[in-house]
Amino acid sequence: MKQYIVQIEKELSKYIAVLNAPSIIKEAMDYSLQAGGKRIRPILLLSTLHALKQDINKGLACACAVEMIHTYSLIHDDLPAMDNDDLRRGKPTNHKVYGEAIAILAGDGLLTYSFQLIAEDQQLTPTAKLELMKLLSIAAGAEGMVGGQVADMQGENTTLSIDQLEYIHANKTGKLISFSVMAGALIGGATQKQQELFEKYANHIGIAFQIRDDVLDIEGNQDVVGKTIGSDVTNHKSTYPSLLSLEGAKERLQYHIEQAKGILRQTGLQTDLLSQMTDLIAVRDH
Amino acid sequence: MKQYIVQIEKELSKYIAVLNAPSIIKEAMDYSLQAGGKRIRPILLLSTLHALKQDINKGLACACAVEMIHTYSLIHDDLPAMDNDDLRRGKPTNHKVYGEAIAILAGDGLLTYSFQLIAEDQQLTPTAKLELMKLLSIAAGAEGMVGGQVADMQGENTTLSIDQLEYIHANKTGKLISFSVMAGALIGGATQKQQELFEKYANHIGIAFQIRDDVLDIEGNQDVVGKTIGSDVTNHKSTYPSLLSLEGAKERLQYHIEQAKGILRQTGLQTDLLSQMTDLIAVRDH
Repeated sequence: MKQYIVQIEKELSKYIAVLNAPSIIKEAMDYSLQAGGKRIRPILLLSTLHALKQDINKGLACACAVEMIHTYSLIHDDLPAMDNDDLRRGKPTNHKVYGEAIAILAGDGLLTYSFQLIAEDQQLTPTAKLELMKLLSIAAGAEGMVGGQVADMQGENTTLSIDQLEYIHANKTGKLISFSVMAGALIGGATQKQQELFEKYANHIGIAFQIRDDVLDIEGNQDVVGKTIGSDVTNHKSTYPSLLSLEGAKERLQYHIEQAKGILRQTGLQTDLLSQMTDLIAVRDH
Repeated sequence: MKQYIVQIEKELSKYIAVLNAPSIIKEAMDYSLQAGGKRIRPILLLSTLHALKQDINKGLACACAVEMIHTYSLIHDDLPAMDNDDLRRGKPTNHKVYGEAIAILAGDGLLTYSFQLIAEDQQLTPTAKLELMKLLSIAAGAEGMVGGQVADMQGENTTLSIDQLEYIHANKTGKLISFSVMAGALIGGATQKQQELFEKYANHIGIAFQIRDDVLDIEGNQDVVGKTIGSDVTNHKSTYPSLLSLEGAKERLQYHIEQAKGILRQTGLQTDLLSQMTDLIAVRDH
C-alpha cells in the first residue's frame, strides 16, 4: 500500500510538472496535492484493480484524477467564505499561502485537469474513459459532492435527522469514495455481480469513513488530525455522535466495517488490500 | 441567430431543471445562466455546424457545456477575492444574491456539469465526445482560461508588452472562443483543411473580441455594457488602447475582423451566420 502512495504522489507531481501554465498556479495546485493526504480514494481504486488481479498502471491516471477532485474540494471548502480553515493536514491552507484568488483558481484548475487526465490517458479504452468521465462528473457535481456540500452548509445550526445526515454524507464524501471503488471495478473488468458487490461495499465504507471523521472531531489529537478539533460543536453541526451518542456512533461504525468486510469475502477476489483499507478507515487517527 | 439563442436558453433551463440537487444550488446556477449573456460561444458553435450544413441539434449539448464553463468563469471572476464586481450584465452578481459560498459552489457545479452534458449526450459519437472533452478541459484549465486569468491578475499594476497582453487574452478568453468554433468543426465533420481555416478564423475573432472589450471599457455606455466602465484604468490594467492608443486599437480590431472574414470566404462554406457573428463582435455595445 505504501508503494501505491509513492507511485500516486510521483504521478501527481509529474502531471503538474508538465503543465504549460503560470508558475504560481502550478505551485498552488502542487502545494495542496503534496500536502500529505492519506490518498484513500486513489488507493481504493488501485486496490480494487489489485483485487481483480489487474495491472494497477491502468488505473493510475484515474486515481490521480480522483485525488485532484478531492484536493480541489478541500481547497474550496477551506476558503474564508466556506469553512474558513487556516489549517489542513497540519499545514496552512492554500489560501493562507497563495491568497484567496489563486486558491479559487487552483481548485478550478485541479477540477478541470482531472477530466483532461482521463481523456488523454494512453492505457484506458475510449469506452472506459467515457464511462469514467460520466461517473466522475456525476459523483463530483451538483448531484454528488457539490450538492452534499450545499446540504451540509444548510444543515448548520439545525438538528438533522439521521436520514438527513446520511444524505449529506452520502453526497459530500460517499459518492467520490464510491466512484473510486467503482472506477477500479470498471477499469479492471469486474462482472456485473462483482460490480454490485463493490457498490454495496463502497457505500458501507463511505458511511464508516464519515462516522470516523465525526468521532475524530471529538476524540482526536489536534496535532495528529491536522485540523481544528471540536469544530462540529462550535459550528452547531449535527454529527453521528450528536445524534447517536459517542458510543452509539462507534457501534454503527463497527457495524458498517463488518458489513463491508463481509461483502469483500463474498466476492471471492484477492481483497487483502481492500480489507486493510477498510480497517484503516475504522481506526485512522487523522 | 435569435432562434439559436432561444433554443440554447431553453436547453440550459432544461439541464438545470432535471438536476437532482438542493434547490438553492440549482437556483444559483440557473440565475447566472439566465442572466442574459450574448451567447457568443454557443452561437459560434452552432453557426459553424450551420456552415457545414449539419443538423445543429448535434451540437446543442456541447454548446450548453461551453456556455456553462463561460458562466462559471464569470461567477468566480466576480467574487470579492477576484474582481469584486457587484454587477454583471446589469444585474447583481451571483455572490451578491446567493452569498459567496453558494456562488463558489454554483461555479464548481457548472464546471463539473459541463463535462457530464457531453458525456451523457445521445447524439454525439463516443469518439467525438472524448475529443470534445479533451479539448474543452485543455481550453478551460490551467493551460487555458484558468492560466490566462492568473496571468491577467499578475499583470495588474504593470505595463505589459503587446505580446504579454496577447498571451493573457489568448488564454483567458481566446481558447474558449476557439474551442467553440473547433467543436462545431469537429462535430460537423470538417475536413483537415477546413479545420485549419476555422482555427485561424477563431484566433482572429478571439483577439478582436478582446480589443472590443477594452474599447467598450473606455467608450461604452455603462447601462448598456452592464458592468462598471473605466475599471481597466482604475485597476491600472494594460489594455489594447493603453498600449496602442484608442485609434490604434480600433485599427487593429478592424484588421482582425477583415482577416477573419477573408478566411471565412476561403472555406467556400455557408458562412453567412459566422460572418454576421464576426461583425457583431466588432460592433457590439455590450
